[in-house]
Amino acid sequence: MVVKDITSRDLWKARKRITPYITRTPLVYSYKLSQMTGANIYLKLENLQEVGAFKVRGAANKILSLTDEQKGKGVSTFSTGNHGMAVAYIAKKLGIKALVCMSDHVPEVKVNNIRKFGAEIKQDWDSQDAAGVYCYDLMEKEGVTVIPPFDDKEIICGQATMALEIIEDQPDIDTVLVPLSGGGLISGVTLGMKMTVPDVKIVGISQMKAAVMIESLKAGHPIEMPEEETLADSLLGGIGLDNKYTFDITRDYVDEVAQVEEDQIADGLAYLMENHKVIAEGASCVGIAYALQQGNIKPGSNVAIIVTGCGIPMEQVKNIVDSHF
Amino acid sequence: MVVKDITSRDLWKARKRITPYITRTPLVYSYKLSQMTGANIYLKLENLQEVGAFKVRGAANKILSLTDEQKGKGVSTFSTGNHGMAVAYIAKKLGIKALVCMSDHVPEVKVNNIRKFGAEIKQDWDSQDAAGVYCYDLMEKEGVTVIPPFDDKEIICGQATMALEIIEDQPDIDTVLVPLSGGGLISGVTLGMKMTVPDVKIVGISQMKAAVMIESLKAGHPIEMPEEETLADSLLGGIGLDNKYTFDITRDYVDEVAQVEEDQIADGLAYLMENHKVIAEGASCVGIAYALQQGNIKPGSNVAIIVTGCGIPMEQVKNIVDSHF
Repeated sequence: MVVKDITSRDLWKARKRITPYITRTPLVYSYKLSQMTGANIYLKLENLQEVGAFKVRGAANKILSLTDEQKGKGVSTFSTGNHGMAVAYIAKKLGIKALVCMSDHVPEVKVNNIRKFGAEIKQDWDSQDAAGVYCYDLMEKEGVTVIPPFDDKEIICGQATMALEIIEDQPDIDTVLVPLSGGGLISGVTLGMKMTVPDVKIVGISQMKAAVMIESLKAGHPIEMPEEETLADSLLGGIGLDNKYTFDITRDYVDEVAQVEEDQIADGLAYLMENHKVIAEGASCVGIAYALQQGNIKPGSNVAIIVTGCGIPMEQVKNIVDSHF
Repeated sequence: MVVKDITSRDLWKARKRITPYITRTPLVYSYKLSQMTGANIYLKLENLQEVGAFKVRGAANKILSLTDEQKGKGVSTFSTGNHGMAVAYIAKKLGIKALVCMSDHVPEVKVNNIRKFGAEIKQDWDSQDAAGVYCYDLMEKEGVTVIPPFDDKEIICGQATMALEIIEDQPDIDTVLVPLSGGGLISGVTLGMKMTVPDVKIVGISQMKAAVMIESLKAGHPIEMPEEETLADSLLGGIGLDNKYTFDITRDYVDEVAQVEEDQIADGLAYLMENHKVIAEGASCVGIAYALQQGNIKPGSNVAIIVTGCGIPMEQVKNIVDSHF
């Protein structure tokens, strides 16, 4: 099986490369959800990565696969969220210079989240788009490699390592529920699964609001949509009109897609808190939300739900606690 | 080094025995606490065990070390908390009959927590002490092995496996902060450390209220004390007037003991929630509480704090969230 220029060897190379730099996260059995659905439900807790999100897998694989010359010139990104933190974190571990560019409007708490991992911050623009243009300009002029957030072979192979761990921990896995945004995660997990245990079913799950990948799949090509406020804010953002990997992989290999409502996402968060004593961000809980709604889950089957990260402000946590307990 | 009848080989045998039945929990770096103390602070997240607490290590090692004849006759316990759950969980995994005896007064939520792992529940007594007498009676008459909660060689060796994992993940560890109750955990961690990397310092930490081991150490022998209400309720309970292992090991090998106030424990819980997005029980947070108070922590040193479990009701979580955020 070769998908675009990705083979199964690429996934195993990614795994070897990133193992020393990431946390081997646990796959935990979820009793109540299993009882409710009649299936065996497992949660892959990527929120337990040291940076708080799975993004560290892709960032590590991408940065580690650079040449020594490229590493010497440093890396950059213009993500202010989990990907930005992951790039800063891995670059620091490797002693590589990292520059994170962002608009003047990015709130200080987000800036500090990235600064604490030792990245240089440049805030000199009116928009994130302008910050991105600067990064690509710098790559052309000075060779500072831009680490893209999702639509990249090495990023996808990095995320695929999660699938290999799920198979190790539960070789009888039947279905994986994966949060769906730009498609880097789902492309990786899908290839990791289908190249290893081909009959595993992949379900991609998005919020109802501004689900760009799902709307692009309906349109038959990548489209743009305005962002809307959602608890699953980490899933917002476009997939790129010139998408190279993730649109095609999602279209061709993901078995189903589904969407969940805001209050279902909140219920997912509350479920995780009450039953696993874990606080995750809204985007992390779309899979649990889907399972809680008794989505298309076959009784008796073994289902892994990917919980992606924990970048949630305590005000939001407080709202969920107040409304649910 | 031989301590009582325990040698380092016993720890490694325990490790080999229990590995298939426990979660290899992560040791995570805690940025903010490291910044605050000037040390490198790591958290060993045993709350991520599938039963929600480290107790599964000792229970697994004890049950797995029984003879086939003993296994055939089943096991019993009279703990209604984390240990009871751990015994039920492991017995179920191994297909061994487990009986958990408890007083009529145990609240239904606790009963169900244990029942969900498949144990037989017997509620026929006015007190937990009476339930315990019944268990030992049953052992004598029918050979149903009582799995003791802490003062037992195999239990201690099971808990010791946690120390081996900490060393694997951070070979430069200098100090371990360990919640101190009956002493099963601290005896295991202390032997695990001192038999592997002898110069690691162990600090045992209890709540202020009814800290039986600390008061026993002061008295020079095991004493009894009435229980008091505390956020660290999992640390309550006596150490046994006929204590065989844990009093001596704690007295002879633990380097320091300390106590923390209730509001400091609450701050520890809030710290974990905000910075690691993890909800742990009060007993789990005494080490963090100690570090937050700038206890005796050497700047520049590598410190592991054991976070033991997550058996906390959501009402308590809500109180902490409301008072801290």
